[in-house]
Amino acid sequence: MSKFQGNVWSPVITPFGSDLSPDIECLVSHCRWLLAQGVGLAVFGTNSEANSLTVAEKVLMLESLVAAGIPGDRLMPGTGSCSIGDTVTLSRCAVEQGCKGVLMLPPFFYKDVSDEGLFRYYSEVIDRVGDARLRVYLYHIPHVAQVSISLPLVERLIKTYPDTVIGIKDSSGDWSNTQALIDQFSGQGFQVYAGSERFLLATLRASGAGCISATANVNPESIVRLEQTWKQSDADEQQARLDHIRSLFERFPMIPALKATTGHYSGEAGWLRTRPPLVELNDEQRRELFALLDAENFQMSGLNPKGTLTDA
Amino acid sequence: MSKFQGNVWSPVITPFGSDLSPDIECLVSHCRWLLAQGVGLAVFGTNSEANSLTVAEKVLMLESLVAAGIPGDRLMPGTGSCSIGDTVTLSRCAVEQGCKGVLMLPPFFYKDVSDEGLFRYYSEVIDRVGDARLRVYLYHIPHVAQVSISLPLVERLIKTYPDTVIGIKDSSGDWSNTQALIDQFSGQGFQVYAGSERFLLATLRASGAGCISATANVNPESIVRLEQTWKQSDADEQQARLDHIRSLFERFPMIPALKATTGHYSGEAGWLRTRPPLVELNDEQRRELFALLDAENFQMSGLNPKGTLTDA
Repeated sequence: MSKFQGNVWSPVITPFGSDLSPDIECLVSHCRWLLAQGVGLAVFGTNSEANSLTVAEKVLMLESLVAAGIPGDRLMPGTGSCSIGDTVTLSRCAVEQGCKGVLMLPPFFYKDVSDEGLFRYYSEVIDRVGDARLRVYLYHIPHVAQVSISLPLVERLIKTYPDTVIGIKDSSGDWSNTQALIDQFSGQGFQVYAGSERFLLATLRASGAGCISATANVNPESIVRLEQTWKQSDADEQQARLDHIRSLFERFPMIPALKATTGHYSGEAGWLRTRPPLVELNDEQRRELFALLDAENFQMSGLNPKGTLTDA
Repeated sequence: MSKFQGNVWSPVITPFGSDLSPDIECLVSHCRWLLAQGVGLAVFGTNSEANSLTVAEKVLMLESLVAAGIPGDRLMPGTGSCSIGDTVTLSRCAVEQGCKGVLMLPPFFYKDVSDEGLFRYYSEVIDRVGDARLRVYLYHIPHVAQVSISLPLVERLIKTYPDTVIGIKDSSGDWSNTQALIDQFSGQGFQVYAGSERFLLATLRASGAGCISATANVNPESIVRLEQTWKQSDADEQQARLDHIRSLFERFPMIPALKATTGHYSGEAGWLRTRPPLVELNDEQRRELFALLDAENFQMSGLNPKGTLTDA
């Protein structure tokens, strides 16, 4: 029986070969491991270095994952980019591959753009994909994109595309915004995901959907356990423990730290690589991170070289 | 005899058809008009909505411009994007089309990236293009990209790629930065362009190269005149006049204002269109802008419908 309930997702980190091309075999294995832990696959997220990949690379990766037997309903690829054309191409591919939905950044090059302009962007993308199967999760991550998705914009999009715009990932880190999204829209079935497991318990208690979190790449089991037992008496204790583990990763640049950790516990050194402009952790940072994790008896159980499952 | 000296460039605005695809005929005509005014063609800049275009669209546009007889040495296409793959594809195309150089944004999705990471990005791009003809102009536009190109990074790139990294466009609007770039690097032949004609006179007096400016799309003749007569006694007066005209455009969102103006003086209504997330000026804004320009007897002389030259 699958532990997957659709409430905990991970922006899957992307393994690169020595020429920095995506290592698809390794990616498939890591995805299988995450699914076995009960975590959905939000490939091509911020933590996947998605914007450092070309559209053609992402299409190939997505097709390869589905061809390898990863079920489409466990996939929520990020497809938003600065150009409508690229976003349409990748979103259409996601629909064709049977993905549960797509996570869509706003166009992020121009700053101080209007809600009207962002509405037209999403509208143009949805109309051009032109497929009733498309499901869009908006992606609000203002500290990185530097372009926000406001509540009035969400409202207008839901009203115009009620069957298509069905959720949001709120990575603002501002609980009052997540709370407002839930209060205002979740009654209509709109799914609000927190952008970090720090807000998992609060989100579930407020009737939000769950979380889509970077650290679900490395700490999936404990995050999923809270999601499945959040009504039990130890929920606050579990949340505190998740926060503590997350705080260890937050001492370092997050993406290189997640990759170093996955490399360490799988014995697969290739995981260390990042694409520029990101830089991998240096030896000292890695020693420090692994010492912190060892002190907590941290494990990524079942992970082997190439990220294969022990008992696959 | 061409007025073009290579010191004034324009990030060429991009005309779109009713389906928002690039109107190449109209683009070619506007480029010819700009060249006739003595302005070089920095196509695919911020003001060209370059990041709202796909790589395939930009390749087609560049090939079409060259096929239409635009000389390669008058072209400095913007090629920088978030992914190394896209930047390499477009830069390689620019080299093959005989362009004078490419103007290269840093990767702009991740914020707070290190100089080491940015160095690796540029390094990887230059090595992958792998063509001795490649000439890179760095593009520093921190208020939009939210990623800066620091002086130590410029120094390291020049030192590593002295024949390739040959200039910079500084759109910081911070004269002390432009001055520092000129002082530190122009002695080695490094070309420093101001990102606006506001700094044209100061740049030329300090031994900088010139300017690459949005408003050169609409006011090329006066900008080029200052560049060609900056040692004359009326130079400060000319600069003040340029500043005043620019300030009229700065009362509005710049890109829509440039497009509305070009549409107004050419009689080609299609120029009004922008790609989302940008929004065209509304009727009231246009009336206000044109009234301001009329009061100054502003002209775009020689521009006709479809932007063709009167006496071409």
